[in-house]
Amino acid sequence: MSRKNAFYAQSGGVTAVINASACGVIETARKHKDRIGKVYAGRNGIIGALTEDLIDTGRDSAAAIAALRHTPAGAFGSARYKLKGLEENRAEYERLIAVMRAHDIGYFFYNGGGDSQDTSHKVSQIGEKLGYPIICVGIPKTVDNDLPITDNCPGFGSVAKYVAVSIREAAFDVASMAKTSTRIFVLEVMGRHAGWIAAAGGLAAEKDGDAPQVILFPEIALDEQKLLEKVDRSVKKYGYCAIVVSEGVKNADGKFLAEAGTRDAFGHAQLGGAAPVIAQLIKSHLGYKYHWAVADYLQRAARHIASKTDVDQAYAVGKAAVEFALKGRNAVMPTIVRKSDKPYRWAIGVANLADVANVEKFMPRDFITKDGFHITEKCRRYLAPLIRGEDYPPYKNGLPQYVTLKNIAVPKKLKAKFEVKT
Amino acid sequence: MSRKNAFYAQSGGVTAVINASACGVIETARKHKDRIGKVYAGRNGIIGALTEDLIDTGRDSAAAIAALRHTPAGAFGSARYKLKGLEENRAEYERLIAVMRAHDIGYFFYNGGGDSQDTSHKVSQIGEKLGYPIICVGIPKTVDNDLPITDNCPGFGSVAKYVAVSIREAAFDVASMAKTSTRIFVLEVMGRHAGWIAAAGGLAAEKDGDAPQVILFPEIALDEQKLLEKVDRSVKKYGYCAIVVSEGVKNADGKFLAEAGTRDAFGHAQLGGAAPVIAQLIKSHLGYKYHWAVADYLQRAARHIASKTDVDQAYAVGKAAVEFALKGRNAVMPTIVRKSDKPYRWAIGVANLADVANVEKFMPRDFITKDGFHITEKCRRYLAPLIRGEDYPPYKNGLPQYVTLKNIAVPKKLKAKFEVKT
Repeated sequence: MSRKNAFYAQSGGVTAVINASACGVIETARKHKDRIGKVYAGRNGIIGALTEDLIDTGRDSAAAIAALRHTPAGAFGSARYKLKGLEENRAEYERLIAVMRAHDIGYFFYNGGGDSQDTSHKVSQIGEKLGYPIICVGIPKTVDNDLPITDNCPGFGSVAKYVAVSIREAAFDVASMAKTSTRIFVLEVMGRHAGWIAAAGGLAAEKDGDAPQVILFPEIALDEQKLLEKVDRSVKKYGYCAIVVSEGVKNADGKFLAEAGTRDAFGHAQLGGAAPVIAQLIKSHLGYKYHWAVADYLQRAARHIASKTDVDQAYAVGKAAVEFALKGRNAVMPTIVRKSDKPYRWAIGVANLADVANVEKFMPRDFITKDGFHITEKCRRYLAPLIRGEDYPPYKNGLPQYVTLKNIAVPKKLKAKFEVKT
Repeated sequence: MSRKNAFYAQSGGVTAVINASACGVIETARKHKDRIGKVYAGRNGIIGALTEDLIDTGRDSAAAIAALRHTPAGAFGSARYKLKGLEENRAEYERLIAVMRAHDIGYFFYNGGGDSQDTSHKVSQIGEKLGYPIICVGIPKTVDNDLPITDNCPGFGSVAKYVAVSIREAAFDVASMAKTSTRIFVLEVMGRHAGWIAAAGGLAAEKDGDAPQVILFPEIALDEQKLLEKVDRSVKKYGYCAIVVSEGVKNADGKFLAEAGTRDAFGHAQLGGAAPVIAQLIKSHLGYKYHWAVADYLQRAARHIASKTDVDQAYAVGKAAVEFALKGRNAVMPTIVRKSDKPYRWAIGVANLADVANVEKFMPRDFITKDGFHITEKCRRYLAPLIRGEDYPPYKNGLPQYVTLKNIAVPKKLKAKFEVKT
């Protein structure tokens, strides 16, 4: 393939390190100017490609691009938008091709999770099915850690570190206060379907009695009686109980706790958040004073406490994606391959997009203790290396200095507009 | 005064740096062994003094005591317990004296906020009123920053930094997602009566358009219509709106928002947390998708992102308290005195406990913008130095290494038990 331009887009929920992958893509492409001309980024992900709203990353300096490595969230805007199948919406594919042809794009890099890799896979078939030659490489990203094949997902290690650090700190707090005040602390974390993030809280418990004493996973239906017994034992033994609850926890009927219509002591329906539901459940049965926190976006944006392992891997998959593309490998995604646990060693591998798209990886049952309330040693061995190392951003006036790119638009070349329903 | 033992206790809600004050007290006392014998800490604050549950801090190594400087929360346990007046509960004071006499305690250091300094003040009067010679020095601590006289309170700078960093990071996240998903992000922070913590979020907004676009203070009654207009303008101009809301925000009737019985679209009462109430209000009127977070204990325990200024000041007030005591100064509290804004320079001053006890310092009206939704330049000038500098704890295996002291009990000398109702 002669020299072509590249397209890069961010997709789905952003992470503390997805911009590190963008950095890996752009810096690596800039080293191969003989093969890759411009790197265009989609403004708001794939929507930018469909609406011909492309960003010329070449207009930002080497220093600004380097700063992406320590900047959280999606520097070009991300989108929750899934391409339909070729048969269902051929017009979208034809539009994509028109935009790529107009801007001489031969490389397509798509940075996202399971849904997004489904889109990558569809785009990778454009050459064969619609005759437009394209090399499409997916780049893994998701705080949920639920992509198959890859040992772990860039973005997860940092949210894992945030959760482990936060529950350790909050538990020190509640332990100090337990004599006369709060005895129960509940931290709600992300993970609608898979309990990986909640599991990471378990890393804070390094020896017997350490917090968190209880973890609630979406994989395990909530047994209220068993939970209450476990919590009460912890309070009686350690004076307090620190709990990490996944937002995806369900009751025995399979309903999300946060939507299960639990009523408090006053008969009011309790809405929004699994943490207050759990806290109130404990209060109403055991009478312990509680506090709860919902970390929400703070956890996945917390670049200030990112895992160095995660940052390194996020950069590496971006870099590898470009290297795969230069080797002409279409329809693949770089993966993280674990070479050993102790010492932790990893390398870049490769997966076929066809095998990645739309497959969710749940917590194996043997990663969760028999009683369903904590992680096993096997799980700990898997998770521990992923939060290792600190990679602090630069600070000025006490605040982290994150970059906001210029994001200068590439002049449009197409006359036709294209409407995207969001 | 000849050589005497010292008593130190932590009181009220703990902070990321109250242990740095403990470190200052103990390390300084250890340098004056000719004057101060043992430093006993109250297990669970003043309750330890009343129940003769004293901890011998001398049983912990110099390294362990030094590690207090980077360990959040209360290493000896804190308590929410306010001594009644001498007339109301003379038995408590007689018990305190009995314990102090039994353990040859001549110095009393009490580390806490407004309520706690009321207790310090009462204890400082024991010599005059009950004939037991004691030197009592208060040590300021409160995330709420609401103590009078002192320019600021140790504990506040770190929660301020946490809030400013967190809203900046979360706003980067929501800004990336706003095209197709979340447009509103609401972060709830502490501050039941005073808006200092919410105000600190404003530091993240360094230039026009920066997040947070809206801050809601307990000092300003919520005007729903004005809020909705402000939020809508932000979304239309910047694509999103990031909001910091104090837990203490009240509606026009003076009711806490979190308890105001707001109902969601389904007619369900909304309970617990001002953030979901604000988010739901915006959703129901403007239709924007939202996310919300409640930081709760995470914010005041977040030693991993503590302000260096705050850590230094927390240590300094602990050290100064001992130095005041050695000079025979009873019934005082070290303060932070601001010498200049730029460059920021501070020194230790002194306040009389009589002037500190039970006085709350609210945000001056001219620290809040006219429209009530942000901080003024004057406020920024005051707050900015307090979050400056990073002071990272040591890490091992990706987790901060916080110390847990041995907390070995001093053998009891009194026969009589004393019941404390908590």
